[in-house]
Amino acid sequence: MTLSDRILMGPGPCNPYPEAVAALSHPMLGHLDPEFIALLDDTSDRLRTVFATANALTFPVSATGSAGMEASIVNFVGPGDVVVVGVNGVFGGRIVDVVSRTGAEAIAVDHEWGQPIDVQRMLDAHPSPAMYAVVHAETSTGAQSDVAAMGANKGDALLVADCVTSLGGVELRVDDWNIDIAYSGTQKCLGVAPGLAPLTVSDRAIERLRPVPQSWYLDLNMIAKYVTGGGARAYHHTAPTSMIMSLHAGLGAVLNEGLDAVRARHQAAGDAVKAGMLGLGFELFAADGHRLAPLTSIVIPDGRLGSVNESGVRAQLLQEYGIEIGGGLGPVAGRVWRIGTMGHTARQRNVTSLIAALTDILD
Amino acid sequence: MTLSDRILMGPGPCNPYPEAVAALSHPMLGHLDPEFIALLDDTSDRLRTVFATANALTFPVSATGSAGMEASIVNFVGPGDVVVVGVNGVFGGRIVDVVSRTGAEAIAVDHEWGQPIDVQRMLDAHPSPAMYAVVHAETSTGAQSDVAAMGANKGDALLVADCVTSLGGVELRVDDWNIDIAYSGTQKCLGVAPGLAPLTVSDRAIERLRPVPQSWYLDLNMIAKYVTGGGARAYHHTAPTSMIMSLHAGLGAVLNEGLDAVRARHQAAGDAVKAGMLGLGFELFAADGHRLAPLTSIVIPDGRLGSVNESGVRAQLLQEYGIEIGGGLGPVAGRVWRIGTMGHTARQRNVTSLIAALTDILD
Repeated sequence: MTLSDRILMGPGPCNPYPEAVAALSHPMLGHLDPEFIALLDDTSDRLRTVFATANALTFPVSATGSAGMEASIVNFVGPGDVVVVGVNGVFGGRIVDVVSRTGAEAIAVDHEWGQPIDVQRMLDAHPSPAMYAVVHAETSTGAQSDVAAMGANKGDALLVADCVTSLGGVELRVDDWNIDIAYSGTQKCLGVAPGLAPLTVSDRAIERLRPVPQSWYLDLNMIAKYVTGGGARAYHHTAPTSMIMSLHAGLGAVLNEGLDAVRARHQAAGDAVKAGMLGLGFELFAADGHRLAPLTSIVIPDGRLGSVNESGVRAQLLQEYGIEIGGGLGPVAGRVWRIGTMGHTARQRNVTSLIAALTDILD
Repeated sequence: MTLSDRILMGPGPCNPYPEAVAALSHPMLGHLDPEFIALLDDTSDRLRTVFATANALTFPVSATGSAGMEASIVNFVGPGDVVVVGVNGVFGGRIVDVVSRTGAEAIAVDHEWGQPIDVQRMLDAHPSPAMYAVVHAETSTGAQSDVAAMGANKGDALLVADCVTSLGGVELRVDDWNIDIAYSGTQKCLGVAPGLAPLTVSDRAIERLRPVPQSWYLDLNMIAKYVTGGGARAYHHTAPTSMIMSLHAGLGAVLNEGLDAVRARHQAAGDAVKAGMLGLGFELFAADGHRLAPLTSIVIPDGRLGSVNESGVRAQLLQEYGIEIGGGLGPVAGRVWRIGTMGHTARQRNVTSLIAALTDILD
């Protein structure tokens, strides 16, 4: 099959860094090879830097971001526990679903889509939850929430933060913000292929690990014996070695450029998307002052597309210009576009191409 | 970091096919791109061929083989169900653990390690289990079991078969053998990097899907809406697109060579390992008549290694010759070696290198 070469400006995956792609074809190593263990340790170190944490248990879960979410829940709560979940889009709703499947009670604090999480409403929802869960960067709406304010007020509860679309692209300080458990995905601002879920867990959270969580594959008690500790590593499952080599290289590219510079590049590209789309007569969906840089959500005003429908425009962008953007999810399907400027994609040249292509299509 | 180039003759990962490696660096596609959906569909078709099944629900789970195991259990059983599990090594034991975490009752039918599963003992264990689970090829012992005999006698129960080390390397006929659910890994006889778990589910099993399994990530009701059906695919999680492109290409290499030819190559390489190791004074661990071709388990006779210990020999093989072999797991740790001839590694040239290197080290 002949596959096209796309500019990936949807909600992820983005275009990966060339260094991350090259590392995928490194000669394969076994998951217990001392060289691979050293590379895994160095990958975890690099993840600590981008998460801004000293957490010992920091590593890439061997599956995509949603498995990072599941690992962050099922290892810590079960029947009898209450979890207060901020829901301002699809991914908060997904957390509610994952929590409910553990037998814990999920209290969903619903917000209007596009708005950030209201910390006071979270606190008012229950006097003593086992856990608060919030989405730092809602990929379905493009809204960013103040996780630091949640962390400053969490009391004895654990705080879980979904950082899938924020890690590496916007400011995130796991330790300073009192986040206990944070997870992400590799295919967003880290600029690596999808397939791994970077995860970090505080020592405080480790003390509350369920001894036998309902998932064997995501059991952090067992996985910790492989990913942390000294020379002897206990086999749990076969780590996806090629993907981890690629993550290591992608993180290397990010840290080489410098985290601040990478974030500034994401900010500049996101600003350029917003300016360009406003110039074309579109509106911004996420609330002013809470708009994500790496993912811009666009409202399509009635009549702006003329006789074409929104999926037709996206198909034309893909087929004629090789540019992918994302549609809306759930209640905003058909009304919203999501434009990602993440990882290697977060560059002015791609924004320029997109705006020019849309100008051609719509004029 | 500079990484070595190994000959991977452990229990997996093997060396991947060059075609599978090359595909990892294809330009990235989004998980909803029509070109990617077509490639995913073609990957599922190729998996149907190697599984020898017409099952509609056949696809790669977005995680490693153990997640395939978990998906095969948690979607079908829960509290009140009885699962009879054949345990003749580590992976049968793992199934017992996974079953227990669902609240179902796992009846472990324990066998001596190295022996195949005794179907009559499985049938005698319970009159009406919801499920039987057996490991076709026990990666911890090198023993192969007769799954067809289990399938012919399963009655109304579902039959789950762990085919991690058999798929693509030894005969496996999912439909003819009445297997309801079979899972595998990509890093064994398929000759692809670790990270995906090929899975196939019979229509009969689909009728027994739990409506809300305890795992969101592995929920087959939801995943089926993405991986099967017509043009419209519902987003569940971001598929690991690069890994799936690689699996597609690895399966292409296998089917191009021909499944029978690939299996014959695995058989010849496994036979050569056994002959070579017997010639060096080692013994075979798995029961005669039930020895796997792709994975040969070796007993290290007392004194055969002289003053060196077994892990020292493996380290020397790795460091001086660039050859990885595996140690024993659990009760046979320190007494057994596991030598894989899987995927691209399953070639006489690699066996020749290994036997020559061991001859050098031990003489």
